[in-house]
Amino acid sequence: MNNRVIELKSKPSLTGFGSCVGKTESEGPISQDFDMCFSDDGINQSSWEKAECELLSNAVEIALKSANKSFDDIDIAFAGDLLNQCTPSSYSFRNKNVPFCGLFGACSTMAYSMLLATLTVDGSYADTAVAATSSHFCSAEKQFRYPVEYGSQRSPTSQRTVTGAGAFVVERNKKQKVFIPRILIGKVVDLGVTDSSNMGAAMAPAAAESISEFLKCTKTEPKDYDMILTGDLGKVGSILLKDYLINNKGYDISAVHNDCGLIIYDLEGQKVDSGGSGCGCSAAVLASHIMKRMNNRELKKVLFIGTGALMSPLISLQGESIPGIAHIVEMNI
Amino acid sequence: MNNRVIELKSKPSLTGFGSCVGKTESEGPISQDFDMCFSDDGINQSSWEKAECELLSNAVEIALKSANKSFDDIDIAFAGDLLNQCTPSSYSFRNKNVPFCGLFGACSTMAYSMLLATLTVDGSYADTAVAATSSHFCSAEKQFRYPVEYGSQRSPTSQRTVTGAGAFVVERNKKQKVFIPRILIGKVVDLGVTDSSNMGAAMAPAAAESISEFLKCTKTEPKDYDMILTGDLGKVGSILLKDYLINNKGYDISAVHNDCGLIIYDLEGQKVDSGGSGCGCSAAVLASHIMKRMNNRELKKVLFIGTGALMSPLISLQGESIPGIAHIVEMNI
Repeated sequence: MNNRVIELKSKPSLTGFGSCVGKTESEGPISQDFDMCFSDDGINQSSWEKAECELLSNAVEIALKSANKSFDDIDIAFAGDLLNQCTPSSYSFRNKNVPFCGLFGACSTMAYSMLLATLTVDGSYADTAVAATSSHFCSAEKQFRYPVEYGSQRSPTSQRTVTGAGAFVVERNKKQKVFIPRILIGKVVDLGVTDSSNMGAAMAPAAAESISEFLKCTKTEPKDYDMILTGDLGKVGSILLKDYLINNKGYDISAVHNDCGLIIYDLEGQKVDSGGSGCGCSAAVLASHIMKRMNNRELKKVLFIGTGALMSPLISLQGESIPGIAHIVEMNI
Repeated sequence: MNNRVIELKSKPSLTGFGSCVGKTESEGPISQDFDMCFSDDGINQSSWEKAECELLSNAVEIALKSANKSFDDIDIAFAGDLLNQCTPSSYSFRNKNVPFCGLFGACSTMAYSMLLATLTVDGSYADTAVAATSSHFCSAEKQFRYPVEYGSQRSPTSQRTVTGAGAFVVERNKKQKVFIPRILIGKVVDLGVTDSSNMGAAMAPAAAESISEFLKCTKTEPKDYDMILTGDLGKVGSILLKDYLINNKGYDISAVHNDCGLIIYDLEGQKVDSGGSGCGCSAAVLASHIMKRMNNRELKKVLFIGTGALMSPLISLQGESIPGIAHIVEMNI
């Protein structure tokens, strides 16, 4: 194909959305926008992993309800998360009688699942598709770094994995809602970052590659969008992205750029170092705050870039660097 | 959608394929069919994980070459594997300049990646798509059970994870080759199996659900296919599948059923317990032995069912059972 940007002729619509978060997120600046807030990150479950399953299940149920749908209406569900074997995704859809596609795109999974859902709906392979993802601070720290119970010190470049989940229902030709006209599938980009406490730096090059490619292919400029929204680069990664885009690609996105990891927390008042991260970060922000602002017509054109660090603790210990990926979903109203 | 089976109007073709295996597989009954055999499972790498990356990279390169393509020709690559964070898949496509979709479908990944590749090609979202997957006995045992260096005892229901990889190139309207007319996306089915040494039993119910649904929706019978080929149920799972289909669904597939886990090894002469398993099992068998038999017109109609146990060692320790999934790709010539 000559053009990497895929145009979706039927303009698939986001007809339902749901979000669900934990304690720290519900104390942050956009807490009033979430559908469901838990005051305890244990979510009444016996493990952090089961707590994350609960978050994801709730987000999917809320999204279905808001689209007047049930599990039986889902033709294909796309879901993934950060945990090994994508446990929350598989278990949330277990015995739900839903054709299921499990994904691994690390923190890029909200954009990634949305773009596959829109592709299958646009191609009439599904009438109703669901895209969903989750993350949990405690299950992620335990798996990727140290169990939180150890109380290990955190670096100022580190980000707080969001305890949260988001889900969308995608359908064809529902013109009254937010729709997706174009998408771009990311590439695996690795510039050699090896610091697992600096995910923003590992993901920024992939985000820059995808954003510059999208703008070039669509012959658009940053000012053509109300917001260029990255998933979870945080404070450090956002600075790197903007610098890299100006210096290497000639695009200045600073006037319209924001990052879900900077929106979900109060970086001054909450102890979150460089900001939020994790699949649940962009999922919960997009499926609440951003969708509400779009439905209010405060935002009409949003370029959403799901950013993921494809980090494996095992291969990192074997000396490998951390590849990044960034998938793009354009959202219009 | 009223019908779960998706018909692919453009009949996407498998224009290239490649397979690559380790020592035990190259000593098995179909060794002459593989494109590349390694006599040492270390594949000249410093870790089992890096050895698996090497297997997958080689399979993809062979598949591309056989289709007269290069990495630059790939519009979308779909790949996944068994390792945490899908390391072999991400690292095989790292900095290769290829739009990349990472998947997690456990051992179902060959069928799963093929069906997504055919969907995107059929919908004209890609002209050339790649589907690929791998597994490695030592990296899988280390992650899911015990490092092989421990020499732990194996149960007779256990299967040997295949050290191998397979890859396909999918294109539109190339009528001279094997093509894919129909697919079915599996559901997450869990009947409560908790024995991580009996993956066949965990996957058989999902395979039965998908096969009976496919036959029902397409109004076909087992005798309409030259082969109904499951991915890696092994000896125990194959018996369970056939019994379950006769007793619960009324379909007798015994005359045409075979399983890649029974084809790749000599169950009498090689110490492989219940047979082969892993993403690489069906991948290596399909991308060699089966494709050669189809291209020779020995087989004209094959129903390939990728079977996966979505097992998480962590959630198993927390008392959960093992869900299964089975995706179907119909292959005709």
